[in-house]
This record gives sequence, C-alpha cells and structure tokens, in this order.
Amino acid sequence: MATGRFHGVFPYLVSPISHSGEIMSEVLERLCNDLIAAGVHGLTPLGSTGEFAYLNWAQRRRIVEVVVRAARGRVPVVAGVASTTIADAVFQAREMQELGCDGILAILEAYFPISDEGVCAYFTGIAEAVTLPVVLYTNPNFQRSDLSLAAIERLSLIPNIRYIKDASYNTGRLLSIINRVDGRMEVFAASAHIPACVMLIGGKGWMAGPACIVPEQCVELYEHCRRGDWQAAIELQKTLWGINQVFAKYNLAASIKGGLELLGYAVGGPLPPQPPLSPEGIEEVRLALANAGALRGFAS
Amino acid sequence: MATGRFHGVFPYLVSPISHSGEIMSEVLERLCNDLIAAGVHGLTPLGSTGEFAYLNWAQRRRIVEVVVRAARGRVPVVAGVASTTIADAVFQAREMQELGCDGILAILEAYFPISDEGVCAYFTGIAEAVTLPVVLYTNPNFQRSDLSLAAIERLSLIPNIRYIKDASYNTGRLLSIINRVDGRMEVFAASAHIPACVMLIGGKGWMAGPACIVPEQCVELYEHCRRGDWQAAIELQKTLWGINQVFAKYNLAASIKGGLELLGYAVGGPLPPQPPLSPEGIEEVRLALANAGALRGFAS
Amino acid sequence: MATGRFHGVFPYLVSPISHSGEIMSEVLERLCNDLIAAGVHGLTPLGSTGEFAYLNWAQRRRIVEVVVRAARGRVPVVAGVASTTIADAVFQAREMQELGCDGILAILEAYFPISDEGVCAYFTGIAEAVTLPVVLYTNPNFQRSDLSLAAIERLSLIPNIRYIKDASYNTGRLLSIINRVDGRMEVFAASAHIPACVMLIGGKGWMAGPACIVPEQCVELYEHCRRGDWQAAIELQKTLWGINQVFAKYNLAASIKGGLELLGYAVGGPLPPQPPLSPEGIEEVRLALANAGALRGFAS
Amino acid sequence: MATGRFHGVFPYLVSPISHSGEIMSEVLERLCNDLIAAGVHGLTPLGSTGEFAYLNWAQRRRIVEVVVRAARGRVPVVAGVASTTIADAVFQAREMQELGCDGILAILEAYFPISDEGVCAYFTGIAEAVTLPVVLYTNPNFQRSDLSLAAIERLSLIPNIRYIKDASYNTGRLLSIINRVDGRMEVFAASAHIPACVMLIGGKGWMAGPACIVPEQCVELYEHCRRGDWQAAIELQKTLWGINQVFAKYNLAASIKGGLELLGYAVGGPLPPQPPLSPEGIEEVRLALANAGALRGFAS
Repeated sequence: MATGRFHGVFPYLVSPISHSGEIMSEVLERLCNDLIAAGVHGLTPLGSTGEFAYLNWAQRRRIVEVVVRAARGRVPVVAGVASTTIADAVFQAREMQELGCDGILAILEAYFPISDEGVCAYFTGIAEAVTLPVVLYTNPNFQRSDLSLAAIERLSLIPNIRYIKDASYNTGRLLSIINRVDGRMEVFAASAHIPACVMLIGGKGWMAGPACIVPEQCVELYEHCRRGDWQAAIELQKTLWGINQVFAKYNLAASIKGGLELLGYAVGGPLPPQPPLSPEGIEEVRLALANAGALRGFAS
Repeated sequence: MATGRFHGVFPYLVSPISHSGEIMSEVLERLCNDLIAAGVHGLTPLGSTGEFAYLNWAQRRRIVEVVVRAARGRVPVVAGVASTTIADAVFQAREMQELGCDGILAILEAYFPISDEGVCAYFTGIAEAVTLPVVLYTNPNFQRSDLSLAAIERLSLIPNIRYIKDASYNTGRLLSIINRVDGRMEVFAASAHIPACVMLIGGKGWMAGPACIVPEQCVELYEHCRRGDWQAAIELQKTLWGINQVFAKYNLAASIKGGLELLGYAVGGPLPPQPPLSPEGIEEVRLALANAGALRGFAS
Repeated sequence: MATGRFHGVFPYLVSPISHSGEIMSEVLERLCNDLIAAGVHGLTPLGSTGEFAYLNWAQRRRIVEVVVRAARGRVPVVAGVASTTIADAVFQAREMQELGCDGILAILEAYFPISDEGVCAYFTGIAEAVTLPVVLYTNPNFQRSDLSLAAIERLSLIPNIRYIKDASYNTGRLLSIINRVDGRMEVFAASAHIPACVMLIGGKGWMAGPACIVPEQCVELYEHCRRGDWQAAIELQKTLWGINQVFAKYNLAASIKGGLELLGYAVGGPLPPQPPLSPEGIEEVRLALANAGALRGFAS
Repeated sequence: MATGRFHGVFPYLVSPISHSGEIMSEVLERLCNDLIAAGVHGLTPLGSTGEFAYLNWAQRRRIVEVVVRAARGRVPVVAGVASTTIADAVFQAREMQELGCDGILAILEAYFPISDEGVCAYFTGIAEAVTLPVVLYTNPNFQRSDLSLAAIERLSLIPNIRYIKDASYNTGRLLSIINRVDGRMEVFAASAHIPACVMLIGGKGWMAGPACIVPEQCVELYEHCRRGDWQAAIELQKTLWGINQVFAKYNLAASIKGGLELLGYAVGGPLPPQPPLSPEGIEEVRLALANAGALRGFAS
C-alpha cells in the first residue's frame, strides 16, 4: 500500500479504448508497469489527458480497476472524479475508494455558472464522502468553472483536502496559493506550468500528460529540483519544454496517445469526434521525443 | 401522432427530481397536460432548462418516457440528446426514437476545443442514426463549442437536419443563418433572443424555458406574429420580456423551477450544487409573472 | 441649425486621410452632400468606422469642421468624442460644440478596467460640459469597457443624455434598456443589430457605417418601419443584411472605404497598420452592393 | 551615456500630474534619483503604470524630458512609445531618441483586431525609425492585440529589436519565446510573472511598477538570482510577492501612486475617471510594504 504524502511525478494516464468501447487493459497495464519502472511517483487515471469527459461510468470504473491492479501498491493511484452534481461525485468518489485508490483528483464540471458557495459545497461533499486525501483540480482553459483564491483558502481547512493541481497557465497564481495555504495544502504543477519553476517556489511535483512519454526525464528533472541543483534542472527543463509546446498545439489526449503509439504502445486514438493526431502532429511529437532523448530504449 | 413541420411555442420542460434522485413523474405529467391545454405547439424535455447536463442516463430516459406518455401524440415531443462522443450520442438518439419521440434536439458537449470537422461529424452521426427530424442546438454562453455559419450550412444539407435553435444573444446571426440555409433549415429562437424579432425575420417559433410559466401569453404572442399583427405582438412582447430579464439574472433552471413552484407545481429545486432560487429571486419572478398576468387562473 | 429629436439613418462617416496625414476635405464634403441628397437624417463623424481611435486631435477637429460646413444645417451633425480621461473628453466636447455640432456621440476608451462609478463620472462630465444632446456609445466587441444596465439607467437621469447607441450584438439588451429608460432616453441600432428589429421594439433609427454606401436603401427601410409596413421592411432588410455580413468579415473602416472607392469616392484606405480591403473583400463588397441595387446611379 | 545590454530591475515610473494637467517634475526627479541610489538598473517612463494610455503627447514628452535629465546617464532610460498607427509611433520614437533616451519600449494599441502582418509592420516601423534598441511590449490583459510566437520570432530578426517584455501571466510562454529566439532577443519579466522564476529560465531582469516602492528589495532579489543563490532568491521572492498580490487587486497606477504617497512622494492619484486607491487599498499596501521591510529608511 502507498502511504505518506504525495510528491513527484504523476503521469496523467491515457485511456486506451477499442472501437467498440472496451478498455484495452493489457496495454494500459503495460504502460503502468513501465512508468513505475521508470521511477514515477504515482499514477493518475481519469485526468484531462485520460479523457474523463468522454467516458461513461462503466469505462471510468474499469480504467481505475486496471490501474490499481497494475500498480500493486508500488505507487499511489490518484483517480479522477468528475461530475456536475454533488450526488454523482460522491457516488464516484466512494467507488474509487472501494476500488483501492490512494487519493481522489476532484474535478468540478459545470454547465451554468456557479458561485464560490456551490464550488465549495461540491468539493466538500467529495472530501467528506471518503477518507482518502483529495487533490483539487482546476483547469480554467477547458472548464466552465474556476476556483477563486478565497474558495481555495476555505477548502484548505477541510482536513483531507491536501493538494491542489492548477492548470491555469498563471504561475504567479500558484505562489499566491502557496502564500495563502502553505502548511495545509500542497501544490502540484500542470503541463501548463514550467515544472522547475513550480518546484522552485515550493511545489511538490507535477501531474501531467507528457510524463507518460518522457517518464525517466521527468523523474530526473524532479531529482535535480529536489537536490536544489537548479542549473541542471533548467538545462533539462528547456529540452523537455519542447514537448509541452507541441502538446499545446494539438488535442491533448490525441498528442499523448500519438506519442505512446510512436513508443510502441497501441493505445489507439482519442474518442470521436476528437480527431486523432495529424501526420504533421506525429512528426512534431517524434522530433520532440528525439530531442528529449526519449526514442532510445523505452520503446524498444 | 404529431406529424408535419415543427412551429410555434416549445417550452423547455424542467426536470423534477426528488432528493433521492427519482423523477417525480406526477407533477411532470400534470405540467405537460396543462401546457398542452394552454396551447403550446410542442414539448422539449432535456434542454438547458431541463438540466440535461446534471442528469444521468437513467434519469434522462425516464424524463422522456413520462413526457411522451403525457403528450399522447397531441403535440410533438422533441427530446434533448447531449454528449461529448458520437457513440454515446448515437445511442441516446436511437433510444429517444424508440421511446416515441417526434424529434431530436441535438446538443454537442465538449471538453477540448473542437474543429468544424468534428462538429459536423457529431451532428451527422446523430442524424444518420435516426429517421426523426433533428434540431441543431447551440448555446455559446454555456457551451465550450459553437456552430460556425459554414458548419451550419454544411449540416443543412443532411436531409433530416431541419431546424436550428441558437441561443447566442446575436439576433443578426439568425438572419445570417436564414439567408444561408433558407428552405433547407428553419430557425427557432431561444430565450436569449426577442421572439417577436425572430418571427419578424422569418423564424418559426421558439424553444425556451420561460414558456413553462407563461404558456398562454407565449401562444398569444405567437398568434399575433403569425397574423402579422406586429403592433400587438410588440406590446405583449415588452411585458413578457420582463420575465426573460429576471431569468437572465439567476440560474435558468432554478428560476423556472422557482416560478413553477409559485404557480403550484411542486417541482423542487435544481440539482446541487446549483443553488435554489433566492428569496429576492422568488420575489422578482412573482412580480414578473404578475406583470404578465400569469398569476391568475393558471395556478389556481 | 438642426433642432428637434434625432431619428432615422445616421451614417458613420469614414475619415479620408492622405498618406501625409491630411484630411481630404473635398471627397468628404462630396460624400456628405450626396448622403444628404439621398435622404439621410444626420451625419456622424468620428465613430468606429471613422477611425476615431487612429486619428490625432488635429485630424479629428478638421474632420468635424469639414462635415459641419458641408451639412450647412440641413441635417444634424453628431460628432464622436473619445478619450480615456474626463479632462480630455470635456475639452473635446466643448470644441465640438464650438465647431457647430448638433450632438455629441460620447465614447469611453479605457486601458485598465473601470467601475460603474468611473463610467458614470466620465459620461456625466461630458454631458455637463456642453448644452448639446449626448448619445452614449458602447461597443463591447472592440472596447475594454462596457455600460451596465444600472449605469445606463443612472445616466438616463442626466437631462441632456438622451440617446444610446449600443453595438453589442445582443438585441435583447436593447429591449431591456428600452424597458428601463423609456421616455428619458432613446435607442439607436448599430450595424451589429438588425435595424428593422430594433425599429420594431421601439428604436428611433440607426447609426452605422454601411449607411455610407447604401444610403437610399437605408432611408427606404427606415420609411417602411416608420409606416409600420413590416412586410416590406423585412424584405428589404434581408437584402441589406448581406452588406452587414460582408463587413463583419473584414476590418470595418477598410470595408466602408473600399465600398466607397467602388462607388467613385477616392477616400483611400484605413490608416496603417490597418490593412486595406483585400481583393476578395472588394469582390464581396461589389457583389453585396449589386444585390442591394447600390451600384446603379449613385456612383455614376 | 548608458551603453551595453539592458539587464536587471527597471521600475515602471508613475506619471505625477497636477489637477491642471501639469507634470510635477520635482517629485518625479526625486523619485528617479532615489531609485538610482537604491541600485536600479534602468528607468522606464510611460509603461502601463505610467498611465501612457491616459496622457496626451505633450505630457508624455515632458515626462521623458524630466526622467532623462534626472538620470544623467547613470542608468539607461527606456521610454514607452504607444499608438494605434505606424505614423504616430514613428513620430514618437524619433522624438524619444532626440530627447536622449537609451531605448524604446514599443507598445501597440489597437481598436479593431489586427493580423500578425499588421503587428509586425507596426513594430518594424518603430525599429527602423530609430537607432536605439527596442523592447517589444505585450500585455494581453489590458490590450486588444497580442504578439503571437510566430510574430515574435519574425521580429527577433530585426537587428535593433533586442528585448521583449511580456505581461501575459503565462510564464511558460516566456520559456517558449526563449527557446525560439534565444541569442537574438532577451526576455524581461513583468509584474504578472514571478521574477525569480523568469530569471531561472533565462530572463535578464524585470520591468514592473512595484519596483518603484521596493527598489532595494528588488535589486537584492536580482543579485540573488544572478549569483545563482536560488534559495535566498525564493525566500525574498515570497515576501515581495505579497506586494504583487495587492496590486493585482486594484488599479495598477492607483496602487503604485498610493504606495509612493505612503513613502513620502506626493505623486497624486491616477487620472480620472480612474479612481484613487481606496482606504482599504492603502491599508493593504501599507501592510505589504511593512512585510517587505520597505517602510524603514527609504521614506524617512
């Protein structure tokens, strides 16, 4: 079992689905094993990259089941819970705990605008439904809701809401959060931020799709940061950033799935009508992987 | 059975749900009957006002079942189909046809941005899965996708995509659509538009939540427009607009549910974390209903 | 001098400028004369189409001087006043009154966000600096400020703030304004709205760039609306809308200037770095003018 | 004369203006002297904080005259040039060079949307009009234009366009810029970014309003970064960030002017209708200054 505080590199796992809608468990399991072998510190199924917004409950449940089984307690599994209603989110969170997850990545979906009051009620509802630690997730680029600093501060007082993963592009916002909640809540970077910068200001790691395809390099970057070797960190960071730049241009799930296909994982494309990665996109991913030294070894 | 072309007033039905998540079929049936008695031309379950984005599939299915049974073929039932994936939307649409609906209101949900290509694939997929007429739905205020004029023109060539309901606030856009697709596709107004104006430029009616609580007045407005009595239409329109103004201030589902409660329909509140209508909101709705003459009779 | 209430068609005049920055007064004067001969009800220099945001004060002053002289009191001249500061706006407004204008089109420019308090202080400052009637202008598509309904209501209590011209695309907003300020303030449509619709709900006319190139058709449309002949109005409106659709695709000033060049007015292009109308744009304008019957006569 | 490459801390100077619109040169001069004594590496009049968007040309010219005279060549003066037209920007830039500035901070104002083509024409026009080094400025939060990565790359090929100051909040964008133009163009942070993070990824310094009121602390932070003492840097950074958080809540110019008043500089308020700092705002600034140790010494 994986205990202690979450830290380090948590890849957002893709969700490999067949044309008939089945989870392709074998390739997902192999990916999990290889990521753990590469040294990642946790696994995060059902984030944005995991296409949570495109999967039904049965598919989501199956994904988590496969990942928990593959992890075998070697690293913590933090699974995404996403809904528009408190009732459904509570149901999902309890199921995730039942399935053996080590943490909940709590995502709020919304159709109509929602007040801080409603936002806090949603996340509090999830936290109180489980005993697991909860990671708040916010991604204003794709979501119709956001977490204000005041809401984050309020939520940080709930005992098992212990982490936040913010994908806003606004790194200064992370420092504002750290200044307000330090000690009660810890910050993870997203692929929208520069991991080395977030580590510098006090972040504990990052949760991101690209870590699926360059796990060893991510772990190395994390180690540089932990040791305070910022010179080495920034050198490596510059190379790895090329991968983020490519992914910012294309559909996120398509990009990571496309990269994994290049590396020998037959994970398929994203769920239609999301488009698969274009030939130009594939070429850009290949180049970025080559620059990062990620085409040697891992895929062989 | 309801045949012929859709036209006139189609209330977006609310979805009355108990605390335990059960559809409260009795009050929903009574509302349907009263609306038909008031002269509405169709019923539209699972639009925005119907909280489609907050219901699971079992709840959605049940809502439609109740509405179809209540309508007894007196007016057409056009049910909302909403998903992020083509596969799920096709499944839903087929079920709706099976349940006896007369048309599909096709809604595209999206998490990642989506190209015109993907948008067209989604709506085409739905249209080809059923023999029913399809109404395109677009609401850029709440949705992460939109329908470009070029995509609308392309989709208008699919034989059973015959209507569009646009909730963009931009009435000029409706005239641009009419100019481009006239003859192949017909336009319905949303509550974001002034119905009398949309009728003037060639619209065929409107689909809107407020029609749930002022159905007779809406039907009267529609009749004025049909007869070309624009003076009478605009007079009535100005009074009815007060209701739209109130609803624009609050959560849409909360407002219509709150208004229905005032009128004697125990439909409950919207699904949490959506807030129920505040006391001030209830007062504003009451005033707007009184101004529109909707507190007499209907609720007694 | 032109007295009485403003109503009808007010073309937004282009600002013809030579490469060395001189106002080309001859062509501007001819345009004014031809527009008056075509029946327009007023002239509006220094609106968006007049590139107010691209001209220095000397150029703005000269434009108004030429237009006032050309109008010779036959129709009212309502000149744009636009600034980021109250002091400068007051200066401009007084100068415009001195130059013989009949009204002020008051435009608020902003760099930093501004509260309703500041917005009201700005427009009140202008109104109190002159005895002329003031038209509030708001264009949220291009501006960094907007006028809330509450601010509009407050400003409608200033005696000489008597009109509003809103370019928000949201026609329902105009009806909300009319419902709130009717009697104290009158509404003009912009080219973002469908003029016939705005007339139907109680508007008094429109201020728009396209009226420069189809003035007779605009006047005819206005007359249909005034007579309550909505059938004839909407027929003509549909044809004229084609012109608005073209202009929505390109830079507004470039389009109107391009259209005027086609009609024989050598007004030049917009000020760089704004691009002149592209060859495809010119072709689209030509087609739209032809469809509207505006290539006969006027230009010969 | 100040030669060599720009680097380090460049405070954005406020523009002290009397009620009658006169530049208050004495207090501005004293501020410049004190900032230089505190060790800043350059002075930047007419940035956002300097209210360029609220000043007329005579005021802008006078501000720069005073600053250049005060600097006496001890540090470089990089003055803001901002316009909507190329012609006016070229005029301003030449005047700035004539006045003895050491660099141009080039700002593009826009009313209508503008293509990359137009953006590049504007900045190229400025660069070719002077022999001084040019700093590209972009602030998508307040401006209607933005600089795409492609446009930045193109502009980096112009020999005297040698710096970019980006205020987008998106620190990852800075790394993308550095990866694309490294060697030809250097990056300065804005107060929207965390300076220590920008230094870590290769930035050369920062241009920001807050440096007016905590100049010694900013210089100390810069020195930590230069020495590679990231631990000391981030410690100090966390304290200084409190000041940025305060300023993000209020009007930028009002905040810096309010802070300077607290420190004994009678610079007045921002130009109306911008509001002066509220009493709560003054209190927050006082607290942030106290936390940063900036209320000792400097103001005495």
